[in-house]
Amino acid sequence: MVLASKVILAVGAHPDDIELGCGGTIYKATHAHGTRVIAIYMTRGGKTTDEAIRMRESTEAMNILGVKEVYFENFPDTEIPDSYEVINLLEQYALKFNPDAVLTHSVNDTHQDHRTVGWLAMASFRNVPKVLAFETPRVRPATFLPTYFVNIKGCVDKKAEALRCHVSQKEKRYLAYESTVNLASFRGSQVGVEAAEAFEIVKYLEI
Amino acid sequence: MVLASKVILAVGAHPDDIELGCGGTIYKATHAHGTRVIAIYMTRGGKTTDEAIRMRESTEAMNILGVKEVYFENFPDTEIPDSYEVINLLEQYALKFNPDAVLTHSVNDTHQDHRTVGWLAMASFRNVPKVLAFETPRVRPATFLPTYFVNIKGCVDKKAEALRCHVSQKEKRYLAYESTVNLASFRGSQVGVEAAEAFEIVKYLEI
Amino acid sequence: MVLASKVILAVGAHPDDIELGCGGTIYKATHAHGTRVIAIYMTRGGKTTDEAIRMRESTEAMNILGVKEVYFENFPDTEIPDSYEVINLLEQYALKFNPDAVLTHSVNDTHQDHRTVGWLAMASFRNVPKVLAFETPRVRPATFLPTYFVNIKGCVDKKAEALRCHVSQKEKRYLAYESTVNLASFRGSQVGVEAAEAFEIVKYLEI
Amino acid sequence: MVLASKVILAVGAHPDDIELGCGGTIYKATHAHGTRVIAIYMTRGGKTTDEAIRMRESTEAMNILGVKEVYFENFPDTEIPDSYEVINLLEQYALKFNPDAVLTHSVNDTHQDHRTVGWLAMASFRNVPKVLAFETPRVRPATFLPTYFVNIKGCVDKKAEALRCHVSQKEKRYLAYESTVNLASFRGSQVGVEAAEAFEIVKYLEI
Amino acid sequence: MVLASKVILAVGAHPDDIELGCGGTIYKATHAHGTRVIAIYMTRGGKTTDEAIRMRESTEAMNILGVKEVYFENFPDTEIPDSYEVINLLEQYALKFNPDAVLTHSVNDTHQDHRTVGWLAMASFRNVPKVLAFETPRVRPATFLPTYFVNIKGCVDKKAEALRCHVSQKEKRYLAYESTVNLASFRGSQVGVEAAEAFEIVKYLEI
Amino acid sequence: MVLASKVILAVGAHPDDIELGCGGTIYKATHAHGTRVIAIYMTRGGKTTDEAIRMRESTEAMNILGVKEVYFENFPDTEIPDSYEVINLLEQYALKFNPDAVLTHSVNDTHQDHRTVGWLAMASFRNVPKVLAFETPRVRPATFLPTYFVNIKGCVDKKAEALRCHVSQKEKRYLAYESTVNLASFRGSQVGVEAAEAFEIVKYLEI
Repeated sequence: MVLASKVILAVGAHPDDIELGCGGTIYKATHAHGTRVIAIYMTRGGKTTDEAIRMRESTEAMNILGVKEVYFENFPDTEIPDSYEVINLLEQYALKFNPDAVLTHSVNDTHQDHRTVGWLAMASFRNVPKVLAFETPRVRPATFLPTYFVNIKGCVDKKAEALRCHVSQKEKRYLAYESTVNLASFRGSQVGVEAAEAFEIVKYLEI
Repeated sequence: MVLASKVILAVGAHPDDIELGCGGTIYKATHAHGTRVIAIYMTRGGKTTDEAIRMRESTEAMNILGVKEVYFENFPDTEIPDSYEVINLLEQYALKFNPDAVLTHSVNDTHQDHRTVGWLAMASFRNVPKVLAFETPRVRPATFLPTYFVNIKGCVDKKAEALRCHVSQKEKRYLAYESTVNLASFRGSQVGVEAAEAFEIVKYLEI
Repeated sequence: MVLASKVILAVGAHPDDIELGCGGTIYKATHAHGTRVIAIYMTRGGKTTDEAIRMRESTEAMNILGVKEVYFENFPDTEIPDSYEVINLLEQYALKFNPDAVLTHSVNDTHQDHRTVGWLAMASFRNVPKVLAFETPRVRPATFLPTYFVNIKGCVDKKAEALRCHVSQKEKRYLAYESTVNLASFRGSQVGVEAAEAFEIVKYLEI
Repeated sequence: MVLASKVILAVGAHPDDIELGCGGTIYKATHAHGTRVIAIYMTRGGKTTDEAIRMRESTEAMNILGVKEVYFENFPDTEIPDSYEVINLLEQYALKFNPDAVLTHSVNDTHQDHRTVGWLAMASFRNVPKVLAFETPRVRPATFLPTYFVNIKGCVDKKAEALRCHVSQKEKRYLAYESTVNLASFRGSQVGVEAAEAFEIVKYLEI
Repeated sequence: MVLASKVILAVGAHPDDIELGCGGTIYKATHAHGTRVIAIYMTRGGKTTDEAIRMRESTEAMNILGVKEVYFENFPDTEIPDSYEVINLLEQYALKFNPDAVLTHSVNDTHQDHRTVGWLAMASFRNVPKVLAFETPRVRPATFLPTYFVNIKGCVDKKAEALRCHVSQKEKRYLAYESTVNLASFRGSQVGVEAAEAFEIVKYLEI
Repeated sequence: MVLASKVILAVGAHPDDIELGCGGTIYKATHAHGTRVIAIYMTRGGKTTDEAIRMRESTEAMNILGVKEVYFENFPDTEIPDSYEVINLLEQYALKFNPDAVLTHSVNDTHQDHRTVGWLAMASFRNVPKVLAFETPRVRPATFLPTYFVNIKGCVDKKAEALRCHVSQKEKRYLAYESTVNLASFRGSQVGVEAAEAFEIVKYLEI
């Protein structure tokens, strides 16, 4: 069970990726289960916007979701390197926080940074019991194959509230309230509940 | 291109399956392209409701979508036989109407009747240039893998209107207006438009 | 989390299938979590052995694993029908016991009865939050794709003890103690623990 | 290695399936390696042609390929039953001839009889070291996934000669000389030789 | 429908890749539908031959196919970088020409340059309605899974004529007339026509 | 048939990878068939241990398995470059030794170096008739899909003896005798023998 983890590490390529991919799950974990969640962004999203703004927005968003530990690495936006250096850095996080579960990108995503993070995470977190890959607006429809769903009924508004913090990105349609509700409703409908987030399993060990 | 077909054959297991799976596409084909669409239901849906009622409801729904030729076979609801008899019957339809495209069930569906129709269609329509499998509320999330999307912007309300004809089934959540909008919006978001229907390709030949 | 379920329904084609596929998980659930487990065998395994003997053996095995409710249906061994009747029967079990999780066969199995049960379960248990498919000696190596592992360290001997009850089947190599340890060790090694059982996810909703 | 088998069992649904799927491989095995090949047809192909004619044609074809032991079962053409009876019958052949390799249909085929034989073979021949699935004109392009290729350079004309025996089926385009050459050339080009036959591996144990 | 596109962008790694992968489709589009086709080669193929020669050959080949706009980028042959720079460059082409469809490499190819272009295209052309991946002599037989076929009857000789322009490469067997006919015939046979080209769908939106 | 090859090239990322992945197969090939086996390690495993030690250990291990030709390249451990230089180097080995079969890493592995070698090998050895990918402790359970098994009964102890040479790595659980037996037994049980090694087919041409 992911929600009842003591420690969850959430790893996203850019500010807003974690919120989009598993904001509801994080909110539920921190609020209903008291889980400690640590968020790591690999870039500061500086390709199109001022980095300071994006970092502030994501920090606020994470706070709304109950996450107080937010880290920003400084790899180049759109060019996260597929290197041992990054693997090693992520391993250090795992050693430091000893997470029960990692939530991160899928390798079945069309965005090069997402894909890179997905592959690196597979190597870095090989000793973590649970590694799940979340959905982004850029996953490939016929290759992102979720089998693990988390019921986020009652958490959708909070997820939307977190996404609203990204004022600098507000022209992105997938950050809109309707998109958030819509995705949650669709994934919920696939498993018979009102709202859900969907994940691919990279590795899942029930202890 | 499916929409511009001269003749489309839509084959569903039960009254309401076609409307759910490709109602928007059919409406757009009949109204924007003047396509002739023939609908075939393999059962009359008599397991839980009076057959006459269900046939009437589906006929009305199809009329709203611009379909005037609606056929109801009489195979047992929940037990459509996986037999040569059914293959042969569907082949006769293909010979009679000479369709450019067939829209029908996916074999990646949890409902036994849907799966059976999907397999039979694969054999029966082997000489039809295009065979696409539509999405139902019962497809398996991680094995239904759509690659073909039809933009149904402007057709969602008509699809919903058609689904509303199924008064006898109104307790099914997936027939509700919200569900229709939600599915169309999600599938649209995957390909960058407001509303779409998603299909697996069984066979696709562009002539 | 499967282990912490209130109620687990385990469905096997023949006496010994459940023990082989998820004996360790069941033992852990009943003993460490107080889970109520109900076992259903679809046949009495009468093809090669006296049915009374096989039923007695499986009942004993299940008792060792902490399961007191054991049901034996009477479908023909090697010819479990792929019919609505069976779907309906399994649905009745779901309605009666309201399980949180179902453990059953995979459709990616070379034994026709296993495959049939896997497909039927998919339809019957569509409203159960978690449906997992276990491993048998007959799964297809390259199509049985487990992503969900349960740590069964400390439960392997009990699983082996349960399997030893099947005295009438003792010539089957996969029932031997070494085979049990070996499978558990291999699956454990894939996720970094001493012993595990592996499952495919048919459906998984974390509530 | 398939070609050097002592005994190969080839199992086809209808007269001409074996010739089409693995005629070149069989010719090479019997002529270059002295392999004993036994052919089993599950039906006599009576749906559209006189059974006696089809049996005679296939017997001739097999003789050209060096096969002297040809068996014709009598299951209904287009309706081969998916039953234990058939599994048992195929098991008897395995027990009698003790083959090193079985060549038969793929489950990834659009013809219902082919698919049925593919599934049954998986159960019946579970103790045979090598089971390979051949290509027919009815396999599904995107799900028939061959990984095992046999070089049939120098055997294509003999394969074509065997196919020419099926005078009663001569309107089938895929029996024409050009089709035979074309398929062999394409499959050859995929592995860098002049001519090949392609197979999916169901099971492969190198002893 | 690809053929009826207003604008098609064809992107190949090396001179001759586009001609090989979709020469028939391009010829049909330009001649039967008046489609504007723009060809982009990512390298000048200088690894083994003079770049000027290869550029001239490909320009001639494209002219035969009805393509007048041919661009040659200058990334290193056999080492096309998997970088944001390349993604950005391809995005600029998309912005400039606003294509309805992109035809390019598959990520399921054994040639590193082909694979790289396939992945980059997925990111760069995310807003293009249709992105299809063509077949090269280097695709992996069991992972290149075409579902979209274009009938190129009557265009095969023109495709072969275009390939003949590559005089400097004439030792490559797959450029020979026989190979062209053979591939077209095989792919045609899979969908019931005389000649076809096969594509994987990366993204397909029917508007 | 792999075992009866005249020349096998085994390519591993680090000292111990080849022994782990196909030590039994190599021993059987050299001893029962007199096959010439050449081993190539792409790195010297210097990340955590002295390179000279690791090279000596692997050389000893290979000698036990009957391999006298052992090459150590010097690419950086954990950062094998995905470059044309490496492809070219591997091609040179193929040209020099003209192998019938290559045994190497799978691209379905969580270790970045393993994956890189898998992809490079696909390009470099495209003209080798047989390329098989072996299993490491780091393959991904649900994406490493072996279809080719080699019976290594009677060779497991020798494989274990070879692995014992890696004294500097002895804390790695997967090098232990029990792990070796366990893996061999599990893979054997999947194909009905006492011990086996499992491979994915990258390319397989029977000549």
